[in-house]
Amino acid sequence: MLDFDYHNPTRIIFGKDRLDTIGSLVPADARVLITYGGGSAKRSGIIERVRETLAGREVHEFGGIEPNPQYDTLMKAVEVVRAENIDFLLAVGGGSVIDGTKFVALAAHYDGDAAELLAYGLAPITADAAKRVLPLGTVLTLPATGSEMNSGAVISRGEVKYPVMSGLVFPVFSILDPTLTFSLPETQVANGVVDAFVHVTEQYITYPVGAAVQDRIAEAVLKTLIDVGPTSVAEPEDYAARANHEWSATLALCGIVGAGVPQDWATHMIGHTLTALFGIDHGKSLAIVHPSLLDVRREQKREKLLQYAARVWDLDMGDDDARIDGAIGRTRAFFESLGIATRLGSYGVTEADIPRVIESLEAQGMTALGETGDLTLEHVDAILRASL
Amino acid sequence: MLDFDYHNPTRIIFGKDRLDTIGSLVPADARVLITYGGGSAKRSGIIERVRETLAGREVHEFGGIEPNPQYDTLMKAVEVVRAENIDFLLAVGGGSVIDGTKFVALAAHYDGDAAELLAYGLAPITADAAKRVLPLGTVLTLPATGSEMNSGAVISRGEVKYPVMSGLVFPVFSILDPTLTFSLPETQVANGVVDAFVHVTEQYITYPVGAAVQDRIAEAVLKTLIDVGPTSVAEPEDYAARANHEWSATLALCGIVGAGVPQDWATHMIGHTLTALFGIDHGKSLAIVHPSLLDVRREQKREKLLQYAARVWDLDMGDDDARIDGAIGRTRAFFESLGIATRLGSYGVTEADIPRVIESLEAQGMTALGETGDLTLEHVDAILRASL
Repeated sequence: MLDFDYHNPTRIIFGKDRLDTIGSLVPADARVLITYGGGSAKRSGIIERVRETLAGREVHEFGGIEPNPQYDTLMKAVEVVRAENIDFLLAVGGGSVIDGTKFVALAAHYDGDAAELLAYGLAPITADAAKRVLPLGTVLTLPATGSEMNSGAVISRGEVKYPVMSGLVFPVFSILDPTLTFSLPETQVANGVVDAFVHVTEQYITYPVGAAVQDRIAEAVLKTLIDVGPTSVAEPEDYAARANHEWSATLALCGIVGAGVPQDWATHMIGHTLTALFGIDHGKSLAIVHPSLLDVRREQKREKLLQYAARVWDLDMGDDDARIDGAIGRTRAFFESLGIATRLGSYGVTEADIPRVIESLEAQGMTALGETGDLTLEHVDAILRASL
Repeated sequence: MLDFDYHNPTRIIFGKDRLDTIGSLVPADARVLITYGGGSAKRSGIIERVRETLAGREVHEFGGIEPNPQYDTLMKAVEVVRAENIDFLLAVGGGSVIDGTKFVALAAHYDGDAAELLAYGLAPITADAAKRVLPLGTVLTLPATGSEMNSGAVISRGEVKYPVMSGLVFPVFSILDPTLTFSLPETQVANGVVDAFVHVTEQYITYPVGAAVQDRIAEAVLKTLIDVGPTSVAEPEDYAARANHEWSATLALCGIVGAGVPQDWATHMIGHTLTALFGIDHGKSLAIVHPSLLDVRREQKREKLLQYAARVWDLDMGDDDARIDGAIGRTRAFFESLGIATRLGSYGVTEADIPRVIESLEAQGMTALGETGDLTLEHVDAILRASL
């Protein structure tokens, strides 16, 4: 087991009809900015219900945070925060709204050019500036990214997606009411299952370090997603399925699965670039890249692929490579069974587009990816060709 | 899945040679009281190493916190806190030292008679008094209770063990260095495996509520303890085994396993009484009670016992009751394989002693135990007879 630090102070309020707890979780004298996305939270009435829980406080709204939230959009929210002296942010939405709101929390009173926050991975906040980072809470409406219980965000500027990390932006609280997600489009629910699944495999299918309990917990979350994912997609009002999907997605990236183990994240880095260049949904980009990546990296990941085959897919008979093929094939088939196409061609991306992906990764300095840093652009090329 | 609130702000620092992080985790101007137990932490040099990390701070020590920490002992520590204006507590030890230190944190500036804190389960701290509860950190030297990452404590006064809970006493940080546990006596390591195991089963072998991911995570921790427990006991310097034992024990009672599921805890309540009356180690008291309790409660726990048999012990063939018998038998055999006797007779307790246990539970008002509150003193009598 690798050494690790684990700290996650987010308070989770999980269950039906929990919105009314917001009143006790947001300071009584707070000046609140509610942030949201394309308007479905507004149309469905959730924003109005949230406003009611904040009675007595000055409340402003900022809508229009897009999927893969854009720096320019978020800087407009920063202007509102400054103009209205906002001191509490309340994100109502999925991972994009929450990620964007974390960035607003960091950028609102940042001393330098806020664009610097995109350049470092770990946001360069001084101890003094840390005191000016705004607290945020969330109301989750899309189970997928885990942003509701971690300190990370992915922010887009132009055709590049930047990871932004800071221990200062753990949500103070997150409300997870599965019924708030019942009206989601089927494809977004399916994206969410794939996103959570790949969050786990990025932290699990690497190389063994004797982290027995982490491995078992990773397998627990994967098996749950395999069990409940199809029902969560096909029967949107099945509470148990959606609740397990939602809590699994949160647990997948709250730090428990990844504490003390090597982490890959190459699928995400390549996927982010597919999203930025071709507008492919985040979850779908992972479904395209991941099976091919596991295949191309089968030597580096051999031991864990065999463990994954045996424990997650019950493939423990026969030739090693056949079992690995079986596990990768079942992974792809699982994504497809949720209605997620796993081939670039289904999204109109062809062999001729591959050089653009390689060039973009190179421009971002992503030339040594993966848990051991030896996944090169040549490997990326092979992965993308295997994904056509 | 049941509704739940989950919040656990403890920072875990896990790995070899992590003591030096203490210097950055305890405020530079803190007046620190280091608390410890019977002296092994002193003799082994850990206390001296901890003192070195606190250079520049005023540091006091309070040793002699016994297993099943006694109220009277802890009130002496409270006197030191008051006399020396201590404002940070640093517990170096196992669950008893950490539990006791949590009580000191609550009692130090409590407005009323500190004995009141024993009477309520959830400590009755006013918002104003909450500000005077001392922060605490821990250096864990015995992987077992999970106290290093939760808000509970068990405090003894005379022949009664009282649970004390308060969200105010989550440790600010806990240092988990498996090498600090290498010198533990074998029987304490074995106790720790049993304690962690039963913490999980108390939150898992109840009745089904569709909490698929919680069930899978519970099974993950149980299977890990079964895999690594014997090695952790027999080969004390096997880092991977001890590290997985230690992190499993922490995860077992940090709230993740129990979020959104019914919880039993009858084995603990009966076991606490065996400890208080007969001086049986906590872990051993659980090993005595638990298999018999599962047997006596096999109807109420039927579905989960079958799931436990299938998923944890791979018993999925044949008659239902035979599978339940098999799972209970393997649980008992697992405890015995660690060197923990599971029969009252091995501890000198006979049939004639059973009425004292019943009377003590009755005097504590524990007449309706278990996840459904229908485990009566008659059931306790049957459980104890089955444990002779």
